[in-house]
Amino acid sequence: MLQHLPEPVDVFAWIDEAEGARERAGLVRTLRPRPASSPLLDLASNDYLGLSRHPEVVAGAVRAAERWGGGATGSRLVTGTTELHATLERELAAFCGFEAALVLSSGYAANLAAVTALSGRGTLVVSDAGNHASIVDGCRLSRADVGVIAHGDVDAARKTLAGHEGRALLVSDSVFSVDGDAAPLAGYAAACRDEGAALVVDDAHGLGVLGEGGRGALHATGLAGAPGVVATMTLSKSLGSQGGAVLGPAKVIRHLVNTARTFIFDTGLAPAATGAALAGLRLLAREPERAARAREVAALLYGRLTASGLTAARPDAAVVSVRAPSASAALRWAADCREAGLSVGCFRPPSVPDGISRLRLTARADLTGDEISRAVAVILRTAPAGATDH
Amino acid sequence: MLQHLPEPVDVFAWIDEAEGARERAGLVRTLRPRPASSPLLDLASNDYLGLSRHPEVVAGAVRAAERWGGGATGSRLVTGTTELHATLERELAAFCGFEAALVLSSGYAANLAAVTALSGRGTLVVSDAGNHASIVDGCRLSRADVGVIAHGDVDAARKTLAGHEGRALLVSDSVFSVDGDAAPLAGYAAACRDEGAALVVDDAHGLGVLGEGGRGALHATGLAGAPGVVATMTLSKSLGSQGGAVLGPAKVIRHLVNTARTFIFDTGLAPAATGAALAGLRLLAREPERAARAREVAALLYGRLTASGLTAARPDAAVVSVRAPSASAALRWAADCREAGLSVGCFRPPSVPDGISRLRLTARADLTGDEISRAVAVILRTAPAGATDH
Repeated sequence: MLQHLPEPVDVFAWIDEAEGARERAGLVRTLRPRPASSPLLDLASNDYLGLSRHPEVVAGAVRAAERWGGGATGSRLVTGTTELHATLERELAAFCGFEAALVLSSGYAANLAAVTALSGRGTLVVSDAGNHASIVDGCRLSRADVGVIAHGDVDAARKTLAGHEGRALLVSDSVFSVDGDAAPLAGYAAACRDEGAALVVDDAHGLGVLGEGGRGALHATGLAGAPGVVATMTLSKSLGSQGGAVLGPAKVIRHLVNTARTFIFDTGLAPAATGAALAGLRLLAREPERAARAREVAALLYGRLTASGLTAARPDAAVVSVRAPSASAALRWAADCREAGLSVGCFRPPSVPDGISRLRLTARADLTGDEISRAVAVILRTAPAGATDH
Repeated sequence: MLQHLPEPVDVFAWIDEAEGARERAGLVRTLRPRPASSPLLDLASNDYLGLSRHPEVVAGAVRAAERWGGGATGSRLVTGTTELHATLERELAAFCGFEAALVLSSGYAANLAAVTALSGRGTLVVSDAGNHASIVDGCRLSRADVGVIAHGDVDAARKTLAGHEGRALLVSDSVFSVDGDAAPLAGYAAACRDEGAALVVDDAHGLGVLGEGGRGALHATGLAGAPGVVATMTLSKSLGSQGGAVLGPAKVIRHLVNTARTFIFDTGLAPAATGAALAGLRLLAREPERAARAREVAALLYGRLTASGLTAARPDAAVVSVRAPSASAALRWAADCREAGLSVGCFRPPSVPDGISRLRLTARADLTGDEISRAVAVILRTAPAGATDH
């Protein structure tokens, strides 16, 4: 006699529906592995200073792997702190003008660490609506009261802080990844000072680009090293490596060492990444003109593209964001650029808070005049109908 | 006339109090940078197979840095996916017996990605009370209803799942980091099957140690590649590198690519770390005896230490956890070991869920018989009063 066994249930059947919905909306994302030697001109990466392939940065990675091994072997508080980590932390803090620094395995982890360790139940976290996903997740994890304010709205920040008794924190990107615009850091800092709040700024897109010799947005605003100010940053953009960092007063860093879960319960940054970041930092300190050049390339790209009728946000750092008429037009535009030998970023919902799709261009400091001209020509030639008629 | 300006407020004054409280409780943690050539015998790291310094793993890091540069240059969906990432994902999935894999910058990021992308509002996440901090944070970020069950309690898992309508997920470490004990994976899987729930297992401490040739705890339990099962793991322990991964059905991996915030909004794993992990994986595939040796070393350490009267949990993988009478005694014990040339882990509150402080020993596969004897001798000689009189 046949047993009628129940059909096994596909517990992930709901994913089929989600995939179908994404397909119908034209929002499917797929990974595109790139070869080591790409023929494409890169205006899509975050390698702002072109350091990722610089011989000194590569040598920094190689020497560190040979000397310290393939991994850090443990969490930072157990075996995962090498003298190389300590050197990078010391030099990064000194370069950016802070008392101390702490290196984590990613900028994401750095933001989760800073926001959660400096807030908590009963405190207030005021967060700019344009903030990076990792700050948003830090707010969610913080158990604090979270007040999201309109993008760049200093008055709203001030009002929200004034309406709270007890500890408070204002958190903002320095340069917003999607549009490349800068936060009103001086205004945010004044609001914090007046209301007795701390200021946490993610300088991922400012380090290496803004401030004297690329010392970052906080240095440029005179806020580096101020007693109530904490910076987070990545080692994976201007420094050409991987990882993140938190910079601030020494006691804040000690507090993170003792309480930040994404620091305590994570393996230390690999020696090769630590060594590459240190080499990139020393290169930047030695060649301060790289930062200015990135800003110059951004201005050139912006000027030429808008002069030809495209709509772009005026770049405050090294990101030039060009509006596309729709998500599908943006996707097609980026694909056409790629076909013509140019790699550009394409930001579509849900990665864009305002629902506007964009091409995102990186103004790498090492782009030549010819490369800039070629990039501009391709972008204009492939521009979709509706991109220029604003 | 002198203006009386208000004294600037120290917004971080509360940290002084927190630091004072930690000092009084004897719970201050400080970083101890280690030199490249430490004279200490290492039983503290998570380098279970001793691969971090293996010439092939180092060469994997070096070659990758030379070929691909110091960093991945962008998020995985923009420029951060190299052919090296794709190769690692393919070979890791095949080795562990899963359809597909996705590499992230850390195991922490992998757990946040898997738990949040596979749950969400209105769903249920059942979580073992002993789970790693990254799983706990994943639960907090998920917006799901979270049911924390007693450590290893299959009946509680079943009951909690049965009490919920709609999608549900059970999440557990395979091997728990603190005590080195294994989760009841077969029981958890049966409960999931019966209740139509998905199972997510963090095999960070199982990969390279458990299962045929180190294929992990899920392979050992016949659960690798099962349609409702997802694994997360680290590349920073047995594989001697850095990073994390999620393994599962291809559609689950595609779903993560499209929705997991810690994947989408993070820079790709650095080439050197990717190359080191791939070299470690290939070494493990070629030398399957390394996994068995790690388990053998754990059994030797456990047998000798408990025969001498110490209290330890029977090791299910390569972690041997020895009880200490108090937090301060554990700290002193670890310091005395260090003084005698032996590096051991020391777990104290708040890192231990049950409040019991421990020495944590790693049974590295490459420890020699002499090294094991030396380690045992040092641990016994330095054992505090109260450690043996149970």
